[in-house]
Amino acid sequence: MRISSIANTPEPPYYAVIFTSFRTEGDHGYGEMAKKMLELASQQPGFLGVESAREDLGITVSYWADLESIRAWKANIEHREAQELGRKKWYAAFKTRICKVERDYGI
Amino acid sequence: MRISSIANTPEPPYYAVIFTSFRTEGDHGYGEMAKKMLELASQQPGFLGVESAREDLGITVSYWADLESIRAWKANIEHREAQELGRKKWYAAFKTRICKVERDYGI
Repeated sequence: MRISSIANTPEPPYYAVIFTSFRTEGDHGYGEMAKKMLELASQQPGFLGVESAREDLGITVSYWADLESIRAWKANIEHREAQELGRKKWYAAFKTRICKVERDYGI
Repeated sequence: MRISSIANTPEPPYYAVIFTSFRTEGDHGYGEMAKKMLELASQQPGFLGVESAREDLGITVSYWADLESIRAWKANIEHREAQELGRKKWYAAFKTRICKVERDYGI
């Protein structure tokens, strides 16, 4: 899947998880895990797409059909391991925001 | 204001505007306008913060107290001019998503 594209989401309502982060120094297995988690996320029920960009600050927004899909992905065993490593090694700071997308438009 | 930081938002609920875009080639006055709009947005009632990153894809998330604040900012005269130039000159594609932040957590 291409991550560098605008996610082709359906008509609202749907859900977004905004993950904003600062990395620690060095890779420490992050790149490989990020790729693996992206592949795994995209196979989950209710997954609608993802958008990502990083300069110093990184922003990844994943889109989901409903809150249950988000809960299930958060509880996924492999994802939980990645979250644990994220807290311990990869992120100096992060914030996760669970949102209901009420309206969208664009060109 | 520092844009390269995790927005210090209050307890949910609050609102997020996720703006995802691809730029056209060249600046065409974009940099100056982006700076001006960031300053202007941060002075609006209900503005809570903003996060931004761009690689090829750009993601800017602004946070707001309520939908009325978002509507007022969208209707701001100077911002409307910038939106018009954005559609005509600066963005090859964009999507704007209006969201209610229901939950957040982080480190």
